[in-house]
Order: sequence, then structure tokens, then C-alpha cells
Amino acid sequence: MISLDFISFQQHKDLSKYEDKKEKIKDLLTNSHEMLDWYDIDKCITEEEIIKIETLSETIRKECDVFLVIGIGGSFLGAKAVIEALGTYFTSNKPEIIFAGNNLSEEYLNKLLDYIRDKNVVLNVISKSGDTLETKIAFNILYKFIKSKYNQEEIKKRIIVTTDATNGSLRWFANENNLVSLNIPKQIGGRFSVLTTVGLLPIAVAGYNIRKLLSGARKNNYDSAFKYACVRDYLYNHGKVVESFTYYEPKLSSFSEWLKQLFGESQGKNKKGILPISCFNTQDLHSLGQFYQDGNPIIFETIIGLKQKGILPSSINNYMVSDINSLAVEKVAQAHLLAGIDSNIIYLDSLNEENLGELIYFFELAAAIGGYLLDVNPFDQPGVNEYKRLLNEALK
Amino acid sequence: MISLDFISFQQHKDLSKYEDKKEKIKDLLTNSHEMLDWYDIDKCITEEEIIKIETLSETIRKECDVFLVIGIGGSFLGAKAVIEALGTYFTSNKPEIIFAGNNLSEEYLNKLLDYIRDKNVVLNVISKSGDTLETKIAFNILYKFIKSKYNQEEIKKRIIVTTDATNGSLRWFANENNLVSLNIPKQIGGRFSVLTTVGLLPIAVAGYNIRKLLSGARKNNYDSAFKYACVRDYLYNHGKVVESFTYYEPKLSSFSEWLKQLFGESQGKNKKGILPISCFNTQDLHSLGQFYQDGNPIIFETIIGLKQKGILPSSINNYMVSDINSLAVEKVAQAHLLAGIDSNIIYLDSLNEENLGELIYFFELAAAIGGYLLDVNPFDQPGVNEYKRLLNEALK
Repeated sequence: MISLDFISFQQHKDLSKYEDKKEKIKDLLTNSHEMLDWYDIDKCITEEEIIKIETLSETIRKECDVFLVIGIGGSFLGAKAVIEALGTYFTSNKPEIIFAGNNLSEEYLNKLLDYIRDKNVVLNVISKSGDTLETKIAFNILYKFIKSKYNQEEIKKRIIVTTDATNGSLRWFANENNLVSLNIPKQIGGRFSVLTTVGLLPIAVAGYNIRKLLSGARKNNYDSAFKYACVRDYLYNHGKVVESFTYYEPKLSSFSEWLKQLFGESQGKNKKGILPISCFNTQDLHSLGQFYQDGNPIIFETIIGLKQKGILPSSINNYMVSDINSLAVEKVAQAHLLAGIDSNIIYLDSLNEENLGELIYFFELAAAIGGYLLDVNPFDQPGVNEYKRLLNEALK
Repeated sequence: MISLDFISFQQHKDLSKYEDKKEKIKDLLTNSHEMLDWYDIDKCITEEEIIKIETLSETIRKECDVFLVIGIGGSFLGAKAVIEALGTYFTSNKPEIIFAGNNLSEEYLNKLLDYIRDKNVVLNVISKSGDTLETKIAFNILYKFIKSKYNQEEIKKRIIVTTDATNGSLRWFANENNLVSLNIPKQIGGRFSVLTTVGLLPIAVAGYNIRKLLSGARKNNYDSAFKYACVRDYLYNHGKVVESFTYYEPKLSSFSEWLKQLFGESQGKNKKGILPISCFNTQDLHSLGQFYQDGNPIIFETIIGLKQKGILPSSINNYMVSDINSLAVEKVAQAHLLAGIDSNIIYLDSLNEENLGELIYFFELAAAIGGYLLDVNPFDQPGVNEYKRLLNEALK
């Protein structure tokens, strides 16, 4: 269960001007326009696809050492966020999940090749268009590696293509080579795709229950998401141009990266938008904390807190370590409010599939609603093209 | 060698008003005021201490599986930054360096205890005051673990205390128990302490050459750092309230965390300051990239680029993967400039000890100069105390 205490640590805000928009925006979301299929979980994934993913992942989990996910942006951030959040520190999943094709570091690719040389590898390449530069470069190099290691029949078991059902070079490649493939829904953009084949296969291979993830997402907290979106919009209109996604459990690091893309791409356009950043406490209290408390007051915080029962005693009175972490969530928000920095707090009672599904869908809703409030299209990303144009020109 | 092309991708800026400050600020730095000993590398560390660290680390490297560094903020960010930047992907240092005491996650500590149970462990606890809450909690738990595992004589070899030479509870504890200890210079604050005993022991234990790191730092690029500080200040005064430290090699991730503390704490005060954030490209071009290119134009970028000779061919024309990464640095800066987003680019010809030392000292200089330009004290952090006060009150 998640609970949204996002008025706990704020100065009073008059949100009445938003009231008449509540049903209007819900209509916009419901009456399925372009790129809105993520709103309906049944359009994210079919029962048939779930079974296909479960069957595939069962086989992979039995045989494979390393499951390589090749993709960038929305093609990997969601899966990485969930797998890391559900993971345990200091031990790897079996199979180990490694992400590639999300950067252009030559050393990273080279060392990856060394690392997997003698391992049993399955490769999942993910790109809707099939044209993404980083994914293409990494996939070509890793495909060469797979071809040098396995015969034709083996290769077919070792490459899974996740792409558009009908279009693009990756779809063509999968059909041509008779590879196992999964379809990415046409009307869902990358940053809203974690609950589609894109995210669900890697998450299932990592050993997590994708049905629970989906059932969490189905809770659809529209009212809460709307309120959170209004608070954000209100703060933005009052000079708070940066939103810090703050977490107190290190394994939420990739979740905050997923949030950055979701909000950054959905609302950062037309010279507008709240800049999403991340903050890991209590580490960053000894780093950015000074700025938050006492610097340029352009920030507000959205905090993910855990209310878990602890078992490890600290050396302080009768407090468990986890109690002190929970107390820090509250006291830091209080300290920041004294400096005029507002906080929304979202509490989870535990990091499990169901809560993460609920949380993911909550933020997807809020990002879409926030885009409408800001009067921008929450589902395009025109600004991503400029550097691609210049880079592709230079590479000719 | 590092090269600072920080005017490559900027609109023309008239920096003449800063000229008369150049020598004045240099005087401020040279005529050693409070907390300025970091400016003189000979005051960061003595030859005697270097030899002590080298001897200690040699023994530790021979025998130990896990070297646990317990500290938060400036007590670990610098060492982590250097060790990660010099590391190779997919393989750990031997001994493995693990950081703890930088957060209050109970699960992290619990899993850490499981992980080290049957390993040969040496523990380095770092806190100048000895009073840091997170460090204290983690150290007490891990000290209990050490005591349960080793006898009195062994314990003395397995705990190294890095703290103030004369004051604080950790100094008292070290003396009382006859533990090996290292002194933190009194006139150097946490965020400027990576080139002291604080950072140098963990870096040496990880197997890196601390003499080369120090000789890089001695290059003292004051003129370049001054120019960079002026550009930052100019941009800040023209509405650019956020500085993105952008890197194109994933192993610079912790380096960007070190930068956030350095600049956030040095300048984020009196309701002023540039908010430091980090950005990992090309990953984040498919995430925050949309915002940078097309969103609220409040950002400028400081980019760390690598100019390394590549060996891994890409599938695109005759380009090595590393060539495409270098080209991306340039083309992204060009694309951003078209949208009014300025970039400073710092090129390194390779990630080695000497370059990192030079880079560290360059940024320390810039953070201090920037503080003076902003008319704040770059060496205090009064805002860190408010949450501590509230939390300590609640814990009573």
C-alpha cells in the first residue's frame, strides 16, 4: 500500500482554481487520444503476452548466466528501476541482468565483452523504431559476439527482439532471421512503456512477479495524482522551478532516473517545465542539503519514504536503524519547510511488486495531468531530435 | 593532461568586469585564512603521512577481502569518485572497497553484515568531529561485528580511524583502544579533503598511485579556474540558476556526486547559489535531454569529455565507438547552444591519477573562487545543522 501524504509539510496553498479541471483532464485521458494507451493497463499488455513472457522467462532463468538488455531511455529505465528496487544489496540476480546500449562508452562495451566471453548469454534488444543510434551500435557489436559463439539454431534462442509489431529495421531483422519477438504497443511512448513488453520481460527474467506489478498499477489513484499534479503546478507558478525526487533507500536510485525521464520529457518543452532532479538521503544531506536548506530557494521536494518495521537495533536509545531513517524523512521535511522548501511525501509500507506498480502508475498519471495543466503535449519529445540531426550529419 | 575548452560553445560574454578580481581573490586564497589549507598540497598531506598510508595499504592489500570505508559527505565522496573513475567495469578491486555509514538504510546494513560474514575485513572509519550520526550508527554495528569475529590483537589491525588529531569522540576512542589512526588537517573542510588522509588511504588501498594524484593537483590551473568561475558567475547573473555536470563515461558518476557537494555546499547559502545537478550522456539525452533542449532555459552545462584513442570499431563507417562518443560531446553542445544553453567543456586525454588530481584541484579552486564572486563564505555549511537539530531532538 502506498500513501500520499503530500500535504504534510507545506505552507497552505489555495488549489481551488484547479477544481474545474479535474474532470476535464480525466476525460482527456479516458477518451483515448494519441499515445494514451498506457492509461488502460489492458492496452499495455494482453493476457496472451503475459503468458508468453512468463514462459520465455522461465526458460531463460533456468539456463542463462547473463541476460543482456540493450536499449536506451524508456527502453530500459523502467525495467532497471523495478529490478533494482526489488533487489537485495550485495548479491546479483540469477541470471545477472546487465544493461547496455544506453551510452557510447567504448570501455564499457569492451569490458562487457570480456566479462560475458565465457558465460551463457541471452540478449534482449529493445527499440520501437529500430533506429536508435546507441542501441544499434551496441547490438551490432554484441550480435557479432553471439554469432561467433553459437550456431544458427542456438542464436534463435539467444536473441529476443522487442520492437514495433510491423514497422522499422528491427522488426524487419527479427522477421528475416526468425527470431523470438515481442510487440511494443504503437500508442505508448517510451517513458510510459515499463508496464508493456518493454519492461515486463526483463523484470520477469529477474524473477519478479509481473502480475502483481500490473495489479498494483490497476489501482489508478487518479484523485491523488491530480492533487499532486496541482501542488506541483502551483509551486512552479510560484517560482519553484526544480522538483527534487528524494529517496532514503539507496536501491531507489534507478527509480529516480526513471522519474527524471518521465517528468523531464513530458513537461520540459516550449521553454517551460519543472526541472526534475534526484536526491539520495541521508547521503545528500551532507552534500546538496546545504543548498536545499539555505541556498537559492527554487526547489521543492517529492519524497519517497518507507514505513517498514525494523529489526536491526541502532546504538541510539531503543531505535531500530529503520526508525531513525523514517524519522529523518519527517524531520528533514520539517527543517526544509522552515526554510520555505515544501515537500510532498509518498510512503510505501514495503518495496514489493504491487506497491511499485501502484507508484509507477501514480507518477505516469501525474506526469500526464501536469503536462495538461502546463498546456503542453505530455506525450511528444521534439527536443530530442536536434542533437540526433547534428550527430547523424557528422557521421555521414 | 586536461584541457579546458570552456568557451567553445557559448555566446559571447563580456567578462571584463571580473578582471580586477583575479589577483584579489588569489591573494585571499594564498594568505591562508581559516579552512584554506587545502590550497597548499603540502598542508593537505605530509611526506611522512604518505609513507604511512603506502605502508598500511600494502599490508591491507595483501590480506584483506573487503575494505569498509565508513563515512558520509566529504568523508567518502572524493575517495569513491576517484576509485570508481580509475576502476574498470564489471570487475571489482581487490580488496573490494565498500562504503557504508553514508545512509540510514537498515536493509543496506543488514545485507552488508551477511555479505562480509565470512570475509577478511578491514574497517576505516572517517569523521572529523566523530559525531556524525550516520557514521556513528554504522560504525557501532560494524564494530560489534568485528569484535564478535576477531580477538583483541586482531582488532587493532582491523580498524583504522581517520579523525581530528586531538579532538572529538573518535579521537578519544582511537587513543583509548590503541588503534591505528590518521589525522585530518584542522583547517580543511570535508568537501576539500579528498587529497588528505581522508581520501588517500582508501584510494591507495584500491591500488592507485596517490603520489601521481597529488602531482596532478599541484599543477594549480588558477587562471583557467578563475575564468571558469567567472563564466559560471556571469551565467548565474543572467538567469542560469542550474549547472549540469555532464559526463559521457559512466564511471564518472561518483565524480559528479563529489562535484555536487563541492559546489552545493560552497555556494548554496544566503538564499543564493547555482544548483549543481548531474547528467550522464548519452543516456540522459533520452531523458533530461528534452528538457535541456526545449524546456525552461535555466540550465548551463559543464561537460567532462574524454579524448581517448579508440580500438573498438562501431558499425558506422570507419568510426570507433569512442570517436562517436567524442563527436556526441561536441554535437550535443552545439545543439544546446542553438537553444540558448551554454556549455563549458573540459577534456581529459585519459582517466588516470594525474589527470584526476588536476581536475579535482581545478574544481576546488573554482568552487572557492565562485564563492568569493558570489560574496558568500565558500568554506562553511550552516544549513546542514537545521535537520540535525530537529532529528537529534526527536531521538532523545
